[in-house]
Amino acid sequence: MAQDCPSRALEPEHVQRLLLSSQEAKKSAYCPYSHFPVGAALLTGNGLIFSGCNVENACYPLGTCAERTAIQKAISEGHKDFRAIAISSDLQDDFISPCGACRQVMREFGTDWAVYMTKADGTYVVRTLQELLPASFGPEDLQKI
Amino acid sequence: MAQDCPSRALEPEHVQRLLLSSQEAKKSAYCPYSHFPVGAALLTGNGLIFSGCNVENACYPLGTCAERTAIQKAISEGHKDFRAIAISSDLQDDFISPCGACRQVMREFGTDWAVYMTKADGTYVVRTLQELLPASFGPEDLQKI
Amino acid sequence: MAQDCPSRALEPEHVQRLLLSSQEAKKSAYCPYSHFPVGAALLTGNGLIFSGCNVENACYPLGTCAERTAIQKAISEGHKDFRAIAISSDLQDDFISPCGACRQVMREFGTDWAVYMTKADGTYVVRTLQELLPASFGPEDLQKI
Amino acid sequence: MAQDCPSRALEPEHVQRLLLSSQEAKKSAYCPYSHFPVGAALLTGNGLIFSGCNVENACYPLGTCAERTAIQKAISEGHKDFRAIAISSDLQDDFISPCGACRQVMREFGTDWAVYMTKADGTYVVRTLQELLPASFGPEDLQKI
Ligand SMILES: [Zn+2]
Ligand SMILES: [Zn+2]
Ligand SMILES: [Zn+2]
Ligand SMILES: [Zn+2]
Repeated sequence: MAQDCPSRALEPEHVQRLLLSSQEAKKSAYCPYSHFPVGAALLTGNGLIFSGCNVENACYPLGTCAERTAIQKAISEGHKDFRAIAISSDLQDDFISPCGACRQVMREFGTDWAVYMTKADGTYVVRTLQELLPASFGPEDLQKI
Repeated sequence: MAQDCPSRALEPEHVQRLLLSSQEAKKSAYCPYSHFPVGAALLTGNGLIFSGCNVENACYPLGTCAERTAIQKAISEGHKDFRAIAISSDLQDDFISPCGACRQVMREFGTDWAVYMTKADGTYVVRTLQELLPASFGPEDLQKI
Repeated sequence: MAQDCPSRALEPEHVQRLLLSSQEAKKSAYCPYSHFPVGAALLTGNGLIFSGCNVENACYPLGTCAERTAIQKAISEGHKDFRAIAISSDLQDDFISPCGACRQVMREFGTDWAVYMTKADGTYVVRTLQELLPASFGPEDLQKI
Repeated sequence: MAQDCPSRALEPEHVQRLLLSSQEAKKSAYCPYSHFPVGAALLTGNGLIFSGCNVENACYPLGTCAERTAIQKAISEGHKDFRAIAISSDLQDDFISPCGACRQVMREFGTDWAVYMTKADGTYVVRTLQELLPASFGPEDLQKI
């Protein structure tokens, strides 16, 4: 199964901590337009957690997602090495998955890290970035011209 | 192999026409910042082609990609049923692939249509949206809350 | 008053043609999430009109506005010299104005052209880009470092 | 002059603290494509400072600006009442100003707060959101249909 697992899989207690952080972050969501709160929690290579929520705008295209908020927070605090991200929403029966834009922002910082997609009850599925954004365009492609 | 093919696969002459349109569209690219021109050509269910190029901005996040330009053009002309999109760049040795944001915009209009990713010499690989954006979030998910 | 007028002010019949185009374009709006249709019509230096509508996405930040759709269409057809843009919505009592993102995209192609902001009854106010985005950041600023 | 000043003008020491924070934040900028680092520092109504930097992406449109990073950080930590934001870049001879997208994101949280635009030497000009995004579209406009 090795090929299905991120190379640096998380210990169960780390996973739980990350899921709880993403659920907690969801409470700060600013989503007066979609009424669809989302939270995310990002684990760095040195064990820190940065969390984010969606932040919407009256001009819908100017909003941003929870996952990107978390990543931009980490970068702005000097962290670029990511191990995993967890995502939470109020969906009861579906695992909330990152949008394509968030997958591309995650992919800027590597393809071999883990995305935990959860249901409201805390159950989850996990995929690598590589699995969620196959055949991706990335930083190295810009060098080729 | 049926599961690897979009349900409404294109005839070779349609594919060639689509590739040529995407290469032609690339010539209009406005990319003074990346110097990385991209063209796209979108085939609708009733056989029309809408093409687009990347349009960049001095404030980089305000640019847009060729694929999205093509899709928004089609929508603005009243077309929402898409069969295939072809993408062209100047990359010699790599098949140019859509970014995550474009995959999400494509996915709004279905998961079972074809993305032709080309090299500069016109060779290509083809994938469905479903393959390029697995476990995707889409319009129906917003109804579930 | 010269300073309040774009240097290349439109003749009344051109204005009417542009307003009608923007109202017509509004009919193609894909806005199942906001239910707020918007249309735009862009006049090029050589007298062509390109129109656009808003195109939303289940992941709200991936939508785009009518004004940007119109501009990207024009660019993708080889036109970069713009004289004026008109914007229409269903607002009865307010002149629909462009969001900040659209103002920045417009500004990439000059500061001295006209934005016609309309009410549903076709009355309008007109401002230059310079007035709508004062003290703007633009292409020349990137050269300064 | 009252009309030129935000209603809750900052004391000089607050301004200096804010400028220094924005300059410090600039050091974390992830800008391998533009090589144009920007920092921002946001002051909340209760005196907290949240800072941000630009975070770019190989797919340029997926990057974000320093100002938006700072605002999204504050929101994700539960703060929505903003007094002022300062912006820093490496421009020697020009006051760095926010792009239109950032102005729209700022405007979501009020029009009567202050934007400090600085040169590399720390000199600045200050404008309100209202001045930087006149005739703006905002949350209340969505209610009107
Ligand atoms: Zn997202
Ligand atoms: Zn793209
Ligand atoms: Zn807009
Ligand atoms: Zn900005």
